[in-house]
Amino acid sequence: MPKTLLSTINSPNDLKRLAQEQLPQLAQEIRSFIITIVATKEGHLGASLGVVELTIALHYVFNTPIDNLIWDVGHQAYGHKILTGRKDVFETNRQLNGISGFPKIDESIYDAFGTGHSSTSISAILGMAIAANIKGDITKNHIAVIGDASIASGMAFEGLNHGGVTNANVLIILNDNAIGIDPSVGALKKYLTNVKKGTAKDENIFECLNFNYTGPIDGHNINDLIKELKRLQNIKGPKLLHVITTKGKGLKQAEENQVTYHAPGKFNKTTGDLIPKNNLVQAPKYQDVFGHTIVELALNNKNIVGITPAMPTGSSLKYMMEKIPDRAFDVGIAEQHAVTLAAGMVKEGLIPFCNIYSTFLQRAYDQVIHDVALQNLPVIFCLDRAGLVGQDGATHHGIYDIAFLRCIPNLIIFAPLNEIELRNIMYTAQLGLKHPIAIRYPRGRGENVDWKKKFKKINIGSSQELKKGTKIAVISTGTIGNLVSKVINDLDSNTEIGHYSMPFIKPLDTNRLKSICTNYEAIISIEDGCISGGFGSAISEFVLDNTYKNTIKILGVPDVFIEHGSLEELHKIAKIDYTTIKKSINELRLS
Amino acid sequence: MPKTLLSTINSPNDLKRLAQEQLPQLAQEIRSFIITIVATKEGHLGASLGVVELTIALHYVFNTPIDNLIWDVGHQAYGHKILTGRKDVFETNRQLNGISGFPKIDESIYDAFGTGHSSTSISAILGMAIAANIKGDITKNHIAVIGDASIASGMAFEGLNHGGVTNANVLIILNDNAIGIDPSVGALKKYLTNVKKGTAKDENIFECLNFNYTGPIDGHNINDLIKELKRLQNIKGPKLLHVITTKGKGLKQAEENQVTYHAPGKFNKTTGDLIPKNNLVQAPKYQDVFGHTIVELALNNKNIVGITPAMPTGSSLKYMMEKIPDRAFDVGIAEQHAVTLAAGMVKEGLIPFCNIYSTFLQRAYDQVIHDVALQNLPVIFCLDRAGLVGQDGATHHGIYDIAFLRCIPNLIIFAPLNEIELRNIMYTAQLGLKHPIAIRYPRGRGENVDWKKKFKKINIGSSQELKKGTKIAVISTGTIGNLVSKVINDLDSNTEIGHYSMPFIKPLDTNRLKSICTNYEAIISIEDGCISGGFGSAISEFVLDNTYKNTIKILGVPDVFIEHGSLEELHKIAKIDYTTIKKSINELRLS
Repeated sequence: MPKTLLSTINSPNDLKRLAQEQLPQLAQEIRSFIITIVATKEGHLGASLGVVELTIALHYVFNTPIDNLIWDVGHQAYGHKILTGRKDVFETNRQLNGISGFPKIDESIYDAFGTGHSSTSISAILGMAIAANIKGDITKNHIAVIGDASIASGMAFEGLNHGGVTNANVLIILNDNAIGIDPSVGALKKYLTNVKKGTAKDENIFECLNFNYTGPIDGHNINDLIKELKRLQNIKGPKLLHVITTKGKGLKQAEENQVTYHAPGKFNKTTGDLIPKNNLVQAPKYQDVFGHTIVELALNNKNIVGITPAMPTGSSLKYMMEKIPDRAFDVGIAEQHAVTLAAGMVKEGLIPFCNIYSTFLQRAYDQVIHDVALQNLPVIFCLDRAGLVGQDGATHHGIYDIAFLRCIPNLIIFAPLNEIELRNIMYTAQLGLKHPIAIRYPRGRGENVDWKKKFKKINIGSSQELKKGTKIAVISTGTIGNLVSKVINDLDSNTEIGHYSMPFIKPLDTNRLKSICTNYEAIISIEDGCISGGFGSAISEFVLDNTYKNTIKILGVPDVFIEHGSLEELHKIAKIDYTTIKKSINELRLS
Repeated sequence: MPKTLLSTINSPNDLKRLAQEQLPQLAQEIRSFIITIVATKEGHLGASLGVVELTIALHYVFNTPIDNLIWDVGHQAYGHKILTGRKDVFETNRQLNGISGFPKIDESIYDAFGTGHSSTSISAILGMAIAANIKGDITKNHIAVIGDASIASGMAFEGLNHGGVTNANVLIILNDNAIGIDPSVGALKKYLTNVKKGTAKDENIFECLNFNYTGPIDGHNINDLIKELKRLQNIKGPKLLHVITTKGKGLKQAEENQVTYHAPGKFNKTTGDLIPKNNLVQAPKYQDVFGHTIVELALNNKNIVGITPAMPTGSSLKYMMEKIPDRAFDVGIAEQHAVTLAAGMVKEGLIPFCNIYSTFLQRAYDQVIHDVALQNLPVIFCLDRAGLVGQDGATHHGIYDIAFLRCIPNLIIFAPLNEIELRNIMYTAQLGLKHPIAIRYPRGRGENVDWKKKFKKINIGSSQELKKGTKIAVISTGTIGNLVSKVINDLDSNTEIGHYSMPFIKPLDTNRLKSICTNYEAIISIEDGCISGGFGSAISEFVLDNTYKNTIKILGVPDVFIEHGSLEELHKIAKIDYTTIKKSINELRLS
């Protein structure tokens, strides 16, 4: 095999030694490299394929890492990682102890700022550029690459609105491919389409915000990119370059099925064909339980609406968007708006299911408190991907929701034990609750193949005795209860051990708790969420407030950030895995 | 006294009976009414004076409450309250059991949506308008009035971005007076100024977002307003009307000193002169301790910068903005941006003090987790108005911060006992911490007249024994410790009672806690924050985790929303007042 250009490159300095006319070949090689590895190791594909030329051009023209370069969200940063010394470890992408799927400041000096959640890059790069001005480093450049879906989020607008009245040397590169994870939506997207067609009128929206705008230019033409970046390199103040790219560029199937090939799983690196997963009958994904159940309920209840901030595929709200498009809304990357929109809808008599990933609800925390709970408007929140999420890692774990929601008055918090309970709480909620409710459930598959049971109403604040015991009560909330059942079943002798599933984190089943405190010596609480302020903390508050003297052991995610890895690996690290649960029970037994 | 027009009006129906030519007189009367009452009862003045004509015109033209009307933030809704049946109770404004200073759905059917925090109105009104479409009420109108400072916040942009691609009958009224609480900032404000001057180019930024834009028109000309509102009433789809008003209109001093007269306290209703407060030497406001201390520190440390999202006056960052303008930033109503901007600045070697009201940090929760704590960037957060805030009421209490911050790894949380401790922790933080820190302090005055002591470094995680005891340990965090000291001093016999001030909510002083658990039978924890997941909850987690068996009583804000009233009244309701603390100590003593 002849020596490739890529094999000679371990840093941007190596890249700069290439002649400009060699760069298209390098682009080709980087694409092949990404495709080859992601085909077997899995990961995000389309976004990085779309910016290969842009990535090369940026590192060719600018003086990274002295010049700061931020990749918004970070799905598209694989090429950047490959060019900045991480080519040889790229196959460890998203694995435990391997490199992160996102830029990360601890991982490389070339990662100027860690990303993962969208729309942070403009604020961060502006902070750096203003800092450089204050420090007198006025020759430094500060570049953020942000997609058209991400720039439409409120936080990005706040950054532009501030940036436009500074003299900071920021270059915002709008990577316009008309798609985030799902196709972009909203008025700005429509406007950008008009800009591309040339039907927009004179003044550009970014010029309105005082940015020096150029574009749109072809993001797959390296020579054009280099020429324009070199020009912009010497222009001071806030600038925006509008670049048009194709997500999935270079792999036919990825270009044609952009949603599927955002993160396609394993595929054939030559043909692009997806490699079929095994055909065993499996329990459904919780996402699909949500997606199919909301359709089922909405067909019978014309007041039900569904809302997702830019995750129709991930959340499976897409099923409702297909079947009942008038009542299913993708509002774009706009969690704040999604929550208050839902509140307004309730005020007018609708029953909104607002589906937001647990980690992204952090973006709408004030809206949950101020617009929903304070006014006691019964919005139904479905918090997808609650708990540890696996390979996406620290930026995406949904482990704080119990703690940050539990302090909000009026709010009901529910974590179903399995898909049947998820269905039944959705059914119960749409019958009409007196309060808003947050239903948290994890990423991935449930327990029951046969889950489409007849709906049953759940009593608010109820719990379940899964097994009676005498000495130690294990109280679990959510799907981790299934693991607890398994542990208890596997014990040599388990008569002493009781097990209670408490899906209502709020309101707690206080009668049950009183009975547990009276009848057991010790309590183990377990949750797929952080210990500080979480479910176990709620149990503790109750026990102490009622002056019980039981020993309590709280199992949950400890007070450190947990990185990426498989779910099994991360549960072990967080000490909420099979072995640790067993060990905790046995320790208490002997004490 | 001749009968006024206002005396005949108890609802918008009464208003509609007036001839259009009588409306300017009514405007005059409403202004006088507002001025007369606010002059003695205090409250927000300038915003409501600025929209008197607009308020009349809206209720004259539209069919409220069938048509929905939302006032963004709500400072400007006094005229609306007066016209919608609350004239006779208006003098109870902001008092315990009186009407709220903000729109509130529980208070009146004319308050379509409760506000308080800014920039929620577009999302809420869009939710209502979409709901009306779904329900087939396509003749209903849906109006939101939003200021130019509030529309520049990210959440408002998200609402516009969605609204522009719907066929919802929303009318956004941009009340452009070039000021929020402090003068508006940012590129959009600059742009709107150009629109007003006529120097903006062809296409309007709101037209770019697909809104039917008209304006700017004079917001003090009732006839023009009515004519335009009637025209817009019959136009379907998303519309934006740009109205120019003067904040404080009709009271000369309020027009000339718009910041002061936003909420001027007591003043002479005829001359507008402020009524001087008593001249006793008083302890300083915590706000001024922050404001003067950051200047003092920044003059010696050139890496210090200050950031406020639109609260230079309220936070007292204005002192730094005056003295060191290059390093003090008002970024507008943009809490999300403020936090990530600070993170970017740290990355480049600066030491940002990011001052945000506790209640508004809820708007930037994800940024604190994802951009600051996860990357362990030592941003210094100063959380002003932590705890119950008094007359602003439920929307503004800063009582959730301990609970929602405590679950975040890497973050230090500190609540100073007094102004000297606030100064010293600010000093300590800028010396260089290994972690970000959140410093929470209340609204209002401190304890010490003589507070400008020489700086002293505070050991991270330390605490103070204020009084040694034998049986009951009271552990307080923050300024409420001063009240605890008073209670203990006043007890008939207090040798049994110990008192510990624990400013570090995280990391807890675990050595001290171990010693307390060992040496005392019972513990009372007390905080000016919510009980669920708060400081007392942290103590409980520690005690249980270490298998101590002490009785623990947690004092703090209970799990209900607390309305408006004086601080003393609200502390009593929340059971963190002098009497309840005393009672709790005595109860434990006897048990």
